[in-house]
Amino acid sequence: MPKITRDQVKVPADVLADVRETYVDNYMKATRGTGRLMLFACDQKVEHLNKDFYGEGIDIADAEPEHLFKIGDQGVCGVLAGQRGLIAQYAADYPNINYLVKMNSKTNLVKTAQEDPYSPQLYDLDAVLAMRENGVNIVGLGYTIYLGSEYESTMLAEAGELIAAAHANGLLVVLWIYPRGKAVTAEKDPDLIAGAAGVALCLGADFVKVNPPKPEGDDKRTPAEALKIASMAAGRTGLVCAGGSTVDAETFLTQLHDQIHVGGADGNATGRNIHQRSLDEAVRLTKAISAITLADYTVADALKVFNGEADFAWED
Amino acid sequence: MPKITRDQVKVPADVLADVRETYVDNYMKATRGTGRLMLFACDQKVEHLNKDFYGEGIDIADAEPEHLFKIGDQGVCGVLAGQRGLIAQYAADYPNINYLVKMNSKTNLVKTAQEDPYSPQLYDLDAVLAMRENGVNIVGLGYTIYLGSEYESTMLAEAGELIAAAHANGLLVVLWIYPRGKAVTAEKDPDLIAGAAGVALCLGADFVKVNPPKPEGDDKRTPAEALKIASMAAGRTGLVCAGGSTVDAETFLTQLHDQIHVGGADGNATGRNIHQRSLDEAVRLTKAISAITLADYTVADALKVFNGEADFAWED
Amino acid sequence: MPKITRDQVKVPADVLADVRETYVDNYMKATRGTGRLMLFACDQKVEHLNKDFYGEGIDIADAEPEHLFKIGDQGVCGVLAGQRGLIAQYAADYPNINYLVKMNSKTNLVKTAQEDPYSPQLYDLDAVLAMRENGVNIVGLGYTIYLGSEYESTMLAEAGELIAAAHANGLLVVLWIYPRGKAVTAEKDPDLIAGAAGVALCLGADFVKVNPPKPEGDDKRTPAEALKIASMAAGRTGLVCAGGSTVDAETFLTQLHDQIHVGGADGNATGRNIHQRSLDEAVRLTKAISAITLADYTVADALKVFNGEADFAWED
Amino acid sequence: MPKITRDQVKVPADVLADVRETYVDNYMKATRGTGRLMLFACDQKVEHLNKDFYGEGIDIADAEPEHLFKIGDQGVCGVLAGQRGLIAQYAADYPNINYLVKMNSKTNLVKTAQEDPYSPQLYDLDAVLAMRENGVNIVGLGYTIYLGSEYESTMLAEAGELIAAAHANGLLVVLWIYPRGKAVTAEKDPDLIAGAAGVALCLGADFVKVNPPKPEGDDKRTPAEALKIASMAAGRTGLVCAGGSTVDAETFLTQLHDQIHVGGADGNATGRNIHQRSLDEAVRLTKAISAITLADYTVADALKVFNGEADFAWED
Amino acid sequence: MPKITRDQVKVPADVLADVRETYVDNYMKATRGTGRLMLFACDQKVEHLNKDFYGEGIDIADAEPEHLFKIGDQGVCGVLAGQRGLIAQYAADYPNINYLVKMNSKTNLVKTAQEDPYSPQLYDLDAVLAMRENGVNIVGLGYTIYLGSEYESTMLAEAGELIAAAHANGLLVVLWIYPRGKAVTAEKDPDLIAGAAGVALCLGADFVKVNPPKPEGDDKRTPAEALKIASMAAGRTGLVCAGGSTVDAETFLTQLHDQIHVGGADGNATGRNIHQRSLDEAVRLTKAISAITLADYTVADALKVFNGEADFAWED
Repeated sequence: MPKITRDQVKVPADVLADVRETYVDNYMKATRGTGRLMLFACDQKVEHLNKDFYGEGIDIADAEPEHLFKIGDQGVCGVLAGQRGLIAQYAADYPNINYLVKMNSKTNLVKTAQEDPYSPQLYDLDAVLAMRENGVNIVGLGYTIYLGSEYESTMLAEAGELIAAAHANGLLVVLWIYPRGKAVTAEKDPDLIAGAAGVALCLGADFVKVNPPKPEGDDKRTPAEALKIASMAAGRTGLVCAGGSTVDAETFLTQLHDQIHVGGADGNATGRNIHQRSLDEAVRLTKAISAITLADYTVADALKVFNGEADFAWED
Repeated sequence: MPKITRDQVKVPADVLADVRETYVDNYMKATRGTGRLMLFACDQKVEHLNKDFYGEGIDIADAEPEHLFKIGDQGVCGVLAGQRGLIAQYAADYPNINYLVKMNSKTNLVKTAQEDPYSPQLYDLDAVLAMRENGVNIVGLGYTIYLGSEYESTMLAEAGELIAAAHANGLLVVLWIYPRGKAVTAEKDPDLIAGAAGVALCLGADFVKVNPPKPEGDDKRTPAEALKIASMAAGRTGLVCAGGSTVDAETFLTQLHDQIHVGGADGNATGRNIHQRSLDEAVRLTKAISAITLADYTVADALKVFNGEADFAWED
Repeated sequence: MPKITRDQVKVPADVLADVRETYVDNYMKATRGTGRLMLFACDQKVEHLNKDFYGEGIDIADAEPEHLFKIGDQGVCGVLAGQRGLIAQYAADYPNINYLVKMNSKTNLVKTAQEDPYSPQLYDLDAVLAMRENGVNIVGLGYTIYLGSEYESTMLAEAGELIAAAHANGLLVVLWIYPRGKAVTAEKDPDLIAGAAGVALCLGADFVKVNPPKPEGDDKRTPAEALKIASMAAGRTGLVCAGGSTVDAETFLTQLHDQIHVGGADGNATGRNIHQRSLDEAVRLTKAISAITLADYTVADALKVFNGEADFAWED
Repeated sequence: MPKITRDQVKVPADVLADVRETYVDNYMKATRGTGRLMLFACDQKVEHLNKDFYGEGIDIADAEPEHLFKIGDQGVCGVLAGQRGLIAQYAADYPNINYLVKMNSKTNLVKTAQEDPYSPQLYDLDAVLAMRENGVNIVGLGYTIYLGSEYESTMLAEAGELIAAAHANGLLVVLWIYPRGKAVTAEKDPDLIAGAAGVALCLGADFVKVNPPKPEGDDKRTPAEALKIASMAAGRTGLVCAGGSTVDAETFLTQLHDQIHVGGADGNATGRNIHQRSLDEAVRLTKAISAITLADYTVADALKVFNGEADFAWED
Repeated sequence: MPKITRDQVKVPADVLADVRETYVDNYMKATRGTGRLMLFACDQKVEHLNKDFYGEGIDIADAEPEHLFKIGDQGVCGVLAGQRGLIAQYAADYPNINYLVKMNSKTNLVKTAQEDPYSPQLYDLDAVLAMRENGVNIVGLGYTIYLGSEYESTMLAEAGELIAAAHANGLLVVLWIYPRGKAVTAEKDPDLIAGAAGVALCLGADFVKVNPPKPEGDDKRTPAEALKIASMAAGRTGLVCAGGSTVDAETFLTQLHDQIHVGGADGNATGRNIHQRSLDEAVRLTKAISAITLADYTVADALKVFNGEADFAWED
């Protein structure tokens, strides 16, 4: 994928004139000048509590939250996504990372059978803007919507409001959209994933993070083929897939390559697959992912990066 | 229907003096100088998710959201209605369309049996006004009320507030009012549809979109005859009917003609019937609809437009 | 009843000094200079949907909302009460009517068995004040409280806030108070009606509209005798009775005369009994009602007015 | 009890410097210069509807709300507590009464078995301050909390916010705290009453009104002995007991004397026992109560005042 | 533990430049110049009502709330944590105590089986800042989150907002995080406690107070070993353990020593163990606790302080 120029950025009409250059700056930073997004997801300490960070099969380095920032600093990422407070505690020591502030979060303690999911907005935008003003390199916001939850309405409204306000301040917005709730029987149904992509567009998001669709029964498409419809439904909103639980690197990189080149994805959003590894291995994985996402590497060439047989550096 | 002059526009008393001319401008734009409204409904990517845009019987062009804007641009419409974010992503490339921002939306995942419908307001008016200030040609707002829902009160209140604020800023408001909820056994009962029309008037809407009434049992009136009572109940609020699912063009245009000339409707609000077709066919259908709505064509003459045997252009 | 002078108006202590004259103006207008209120209730298009305006036994003129304004214009009324939007659509053509803006409303679709009633406030006071500023002759506000509903608390709070704000802006407030909800077994119990009157006083209302009490069992008082206790409980808040469904004029006028002269009522609040008649008959009924309310006519003399054997005009 | 000086008033640290003198003024007025509070409770027209004001055993004078103000004017009280609207309607004619505005209220229609109690705040503080500015002699606010209700959280929050705001404006706050709700099996349990007193302190109230504790079973303490623990738990918040339903004067005055001299109470809060009597008798009872509360009379001497054998006047 | 210098304080990035010195001042005061926190918890008069302050095994001195302030004044503590109102009533007489205002509280009347816990915010930050401005030595805020409650979302949001606002005003924040609700079966599960610690970090808290974890079944770690994982998960947020119900001093001090030296805790938060004792004994216990927390005393040496065989004083 060739780099894009600033003029090629499609600036939404709700980015006001006085912050147009800021928006373009942030877009170019987050996509490392390519229009594609490599998002390192570090918001799971609330979502999954400590079980994603400590236990069998997880490198002990991951028990210390600073691990995330070391990876973000030494690896090649587009943005590091985390809650405002997490970023506030470490950003002064890691000033070069592009931060994306996750605006809402919930724990996994209350299950859907007890109550449909709602992820509350944890702070207002002013608090984020004050941090930016105070020198933190914040390029955008994230927000999760559980489509089909009985609390869908609150999340749609908070997201809709947030995107307008973010664009008015030159920030990008990435929506995480997951169909979930008592009304949802198949969370990865291809039609539903495509629907989620369309909702993100209607709300005006810059990117949407969805789970990869899972065709079942008579639907003989590959996941990536099904994803293509979702990418189309997303229109000018870039679509990226969640990385899911940790798998071996080759499987992971192959999926990612298909998502982009068959499924029309505009990047990826990966958490556990990266941070559950040792610092060195995690850093190499971010580079392999970015090699595919930003520079159109083949899977084989990206695996060489992951295996340390080749390095991957990236100048915006 | 002859064109109207600016002096003939009945300006509501909550349109403040300093925006009176803006309101009249918007009214004339939206009704193309006739007092009748041809509304192209493009808000369904949230309401119906992706199933209205991709699948059997739907032209593949509809899978790409930009399809909607191409139709709006090349066809003859009064307004294109869509969510704020959707409009923000494409408006810069389609500056001549009259936009109507749909202020609330919900998905169809949670059914009424589980929970009565509530469609949340997705952004405040300031966000819309900022886009207008930023150059987007916004002429009005839309809002859906589910009358008879347990959440009716919230929607009535949001709509009531919104209309006051919209008029104070020179914008039109179209209400979508659908009786729906566990308390509603016949959503298209003529009395109920007339009731919905009266509610729109009491809230001060400029237009109300309702489903065509469906007389049943002893009620031997045609739908259009029953509609006439609703049109009367709407008073100075113009009444338009929803287009519903896709039917053949002749049936569709005949219904529309009856709604206007028997039922007293002041236009139409059509979505799927238009956008599920190929670009060329969709454009021709908008022209056929507008021929009836704006220029009092017969059904036969309008069909010629749809069939490409005659063109229909319209200067405001 | 002799006319009162401006000095005789008991101005509540929350009417601030700078709007004192405005309040007295509005009080004198609404009561036509008598201290008694003849309220023409036109808010039922939401409350009762279209069934009060179209159907058997209702003059066809009532199907058109403008009917209400014609009656208000040609008859003799204190105030015409309707929702903000309804008034906004017609006020410019009927500038001499005294308007009372009904601030909340609900439909009758969801029954108490399903959910206790809540009538939401539909717009804020600023929207009403802007209309007044824009030239509409608004003299006061109305608000309905369902006492004993599980949502009583929200309505008490909205009403309490509204009265303070209305008085601070020189506007009158009329509360409609109806005991209703699963906890209420006898909505017209005399003690309960008297209780409702006391609540209106504690909230600081200028007038309260209640249903006429209905003594039952051992309570051998006439309705008007029972009403007297409610009038006492209302203290300085004037009490008026709702007119109820349409009855013949003599019955109606006799009840009204008793309510005032036995029951201590300070006027009446009548809707269906007026607007379901033809324009001419409705106008005559407003005059007959006002003859009793404002000028202490006997029932016989008022009937002559209704029958067109005598005219009734009123100069404030 | 000797009078106190202005310097002896313990001014809470949230009374800002610029309103310190106003707070001390109000404290001295409300306690008539003694630090003890005689509160005349007139907020029951909402709480108990009309049954406390009209019926068997109640003097007919009580049916007219102005009765309350006549008592407050001619008797000896610290403050007259009533809703904002009630005070607004009469205050201009009774300017010398010290008013305490009851900020929340509910009716007794919905029982705890149906729904736990919540008493909504009926107006904001600004509305009260505007009345003070307009000349009404308002010295403080009242607010009721139902501890143990499922809505406890809302009431705790409203009260907590209100006290901060009241002190910032130099006003006193009296909390009414009643344990009530499905979780509360013994509303007058001594531990619970003491707990209520402690909650009032933690919220920063100046006085707390509780029901007298009722020791049961193995607890052989008198009510007044049990009350002493509650008074201690209240710390610097003065504790007063609710008067309850009407009893004979001697019983009433003896209880009051014990509450103060054994139980450590700082006054009393009495409603029905006063207003259900004729004006003359009610006035004499306020004087007898104040003789005990403000001037440390014996029960016998106070009874003489009640019986008209001695007068009691009080200069602050 | 050696003292730290001002330069060693890790100031979060949401502490704006103009309050950076204030934040460092407060951090140094609260931790008495060590980075470790000795928190004296005095917020239980709401949480536990009066049962923690009066009854068998509790010194009678504890029945008077001023007891808490005498201990805070004469003992050695980092901060005294209590509700805003409690502090407001006594702070003028105890000006040297470092106050931490507990922002939310609930009673224990409604049990989890009836309703999941929610602890409401009782006042806004402005009320606290006004008290600080008025001379009260406030160094920080406290807030309780019940993780896993159905109301978790509201508490997460209130806490998230509060931390941003507190830091923007130079105040510290301590979160109390307790997993509790119908979804939580083991409130002291080590993974869950570690999860709670991580949540505090993501919200940006300066310290988090958790219950000591309780390893069960196959988990053979000591509580302090299990606590180490939680301390790691807390990252730059300091972790302290709640003291729990009163135990003998040696047991208590040994636990504390282990929590710090094995479990990686950064201090302690103790209430009942201190205030249920007589003033003299309570003062000695605060000194023994501080000897371990601030000065790395052995348990034996700290016991000497508690037994009065040695004194412990501390200069910041």
